[in-house]
Amino acid sequence: MPRINEHYLNLNASYLFAEIKRRTEMFRSANPDARVISLGIGDVTQPLPPAVVGALETAAREQGRAETLKGYGPYVGYEWLRSAIATHEFGARGVRLAPEEVFVSDGGKSDGANIQEIFADDCVVALMDPVYPVYADSNVMAGRAGSADEKGRYTGFVYLPCTAENDFQPALPAGHVDLIYLCYPNNPTGAVMTREALRQWVDYARTHEAVILYDAAYEAYIRDPAIPHSIYEIEGAREVAIESRSFSKSAGFTGLRLAYTIVPREARGRTSDGETLSLNEMWLRRMSTKSNGPPYVIQRAAAAVYTPEGQAQVRALTDFYMENARLIRDALGAAGLTVYGGRSAPYIWARTPPGLSSWDFFDKLLREAHVVGAPGSGFGPSGEGYFRLTAFGSREQTVEALERIRTRLS
Amino acid sequence: MPRINEHYLNLNASYLFAEIKRRTEMFRSANPDARVISLGIGDVTQPLPPAVVGALETAAREQGRAETLKGYGPYVGYEWLRSAIATHEFGARGVRLAPEEVFVSDGGKSDGANIQEIFADDCVVALMDPVYPVYADSNVMAGRAGSADEKGRYTGFVYLPCTAENDFQPALPAGHVDLIYLCYPNNPTGAVMTREALRQWVDYARTHEAVILYDAAYEAYIRDPAIPHSIYEIEGAREVAIESRSFSKSAGFTGLRLAYTIVPREARGRTSDGETLSLNEMWLRRMSTKSNGPPYVIQRAAAAVYTPEGQAQVRALTDFYMENARLIRDALGAAGLTVYGGRSAPYIWARTPPGLSSWDFFDKLLREAHVVGAPGSGFGPSGEGYFRLTAFGSREQTVEALERIRTRLS
Repeated sequence: MPRINEHYLNLNASYLFAEIKRRTEMFRSANPDARVISLGIGDVTQPLPPAVVGALETAAREQGRAETLKGYGPYVGYEWLRSAIATHEFGARGVRLAPEEVFVSDGGKSDGANIQEIFADDCVVALMDPVYPVYADSNVMAGRAGSADEKGRYTGFVYLPCTAENDFQPALPAGHVDLIYLCYPNNPTGAVMTREALRQWVDYARTHEAVILYDAAYEAYIRDPAIPHSIYEIEGAREVAIESRSFSKSAGFTGLRLAYTIVPREARGRTSDGETLSLNEMWLRRMSTKSNGPPYVIQRAAAAVYTPEGQAQVRALTDFYMENARLIRDALGAAGLTVYGGRSAPYIWARTPPGLSSWDFFDKLLREAHVVGAPGSGFGPSGEGYFRLTAFGSREQTVEALERIRTRLS
Repeated sequence: MPRINEHYLNLNASYLFAEIKRRTEMFRSANPDARVISLGIGDVTQPLPPAVVGALETAAREQGRAETLKGYGPYVGYEWLRSAIATHEFGARGVRLAPEEVFVSDGGKSDGANIQEIFADDCVVALMDPVYPVYADSNVMAGRAGSADEKGRYTGFVYLPCTAENDFQPALPAGHVDLIYLCYPNNPTGAVMTREALRQWVDYARTHEAVILYDAAYEAYIRDPAIPHSIYEIEGAREVAIESRSFSKSAGFTGLRLAYTIVPREARGRTSDGETLSLNEMWLRRMSTKSNGPPYVIQRAAAAVYTPEGQAQVRALTDFYMENARLIRDALGAAGLTVYGGRSAPYIWARTPPGLSSWDFFDKLLREAHVVGAPGSGFGPSGEGYFRLTAFGSREQTVEALERIRTRLS
């Protein structure tokens, strides 16, 4: 039989959310009467905005008539959507992008996993710790990680510890790295990065000829006016940064699937001969060879976000979740926990009580309050001793979960 | 700046359909009054079946209510869709599949491009010639191809020439190969593979410990009852074959995006130490790490294909296109061309007139009849001297194109 991609053997056995699911199901079957509330996985609970649903229905009907049928679309999204994104998401904040720099895709997860394909196998990858697992796993599969130690730490990665001590904004790497994954507002810590800190990363990337892969999936949750929404607000970033965003968390698209990645024309990579190539052209080639773009009907739904009604509705959606975040912050604080995040991000990151590991606290919360969270250590070794709750619950379930934490946690 | 994936430099510069588009647009701007008809790209023209549109609208409305909202779905498709596919597409033909062997995705193109990721970089790849470009390009990007000669032929691939002489069913490779891409009913030649020929391939794969990547995207167009619809109709195929199919051509989903790949539990690969691993588990790991599955609303639309109305409507759809195929076969034959395919496939493959290359005939057809086809050489060197027309046009445009070919072609 053919030889497999043996880099897969280096993947850590259990994907965090699968393990959360396993423990939750074990608890449920042992306690069938418990009404378990999940504030663990960052999935939305509020219905899609009416403007989006209306656009989706209209587009569905268009597909039912020959005159308005849309077959294969452009590989990287319709021009009207790419333009609307450039105008509304960036132009409105003074960042000028051409539509050709906007690549529409079926999800932030896919973009985050696929972007590494255009770089060489021996690029040195720097990852925040804790981190969204997809960046790590996609690079493990591509052979950039080496093997993992008993803590799940790969010998081939440069880790950037993010802890309360550095305000969850990591120090620059001591040596040279090629690819830097940064995510702000951060999942899982709920931290933001200041303009000054982000400028240092852009400067580092320019000096070291690195590329920053900037995940701004939670940008719509920024409430502090001093915090940059896009890395392109920093001078010089166009040459060294690729930014990804998603409609999942801004407009409730986790089930609809739509995201986009910005690759500026100035961003370049090099060959071993010293020739340089446009990363924009490479990503276009990658996407046009391996994808036919997201469904027309979903792109229409996304475009509806940029109508005046759509804008008001998605703002109400993120405001709703941010009120959940405030309630969670207050309740955990009142329960004596030290709390981070949740002010410009939909994630609340708390220290576990003294003596309890992340998984210990996961089990305790499930057992005593019947509430599912996410253990910080599941996102990386520096997440040990922390715990994540999400603001994406319904109001009723969030309030009940917090009430149980207040009254039942020993 | 970071080093790029230099395998991209080995990609042939122009993607076939981009070059078709370029020449067509040049012709259009020089001849603004010409009403150009395209029978070049295999994109559908008939509206989506009413059962599908209805399901899409219903699902859109479900997303607008909290009680029925669906967020993140299973990574590889909802169980109800995987089950329906196993039952209707395979069970009905006596092929038993478990739902866990069915992996739902956003397109045959993505599956065809991504499947190679689970195999080692040094696997030897055999490709039909002519061939759908995605199989080649995805392996070029992964470094399995080496560089291309002036005809676009890669030194690292084993080519399987398909010509009129072998009835477009290639001979087995002389030596050992690891991965074999087969596509039947074939794009671009419109050929089918007999049960006996397919059995020889399965036997080869079992003897040589190879895996067959079987693209059955056009299965719904098989009209000859002797032709197998699935490679799993051949005994022993479950150990050595992965089969992909798509809703694009069976139900008009080119704009909706839905496909699936079957990886049987028995299919295995090996490590260099001789350990064996389940390809089903590897593909699950690949897809769950890099994707969140297709949109819920699109999966609902796909499931509607398996209702009684849906089944009748999609059959009417493929019958409609097959009547186009018959008209094209007849007209090209009457015009003196030698014609292949189009009996159990929506593609008609014709020999170009003596002395004309594929691109010569492309230009002649465009210039004289204002009809766009696809040059056979664009699919590989053995396609030189052939030409492809598709049955996916509207009736009116197909008939007019054929009338022009009859009356205007010198």
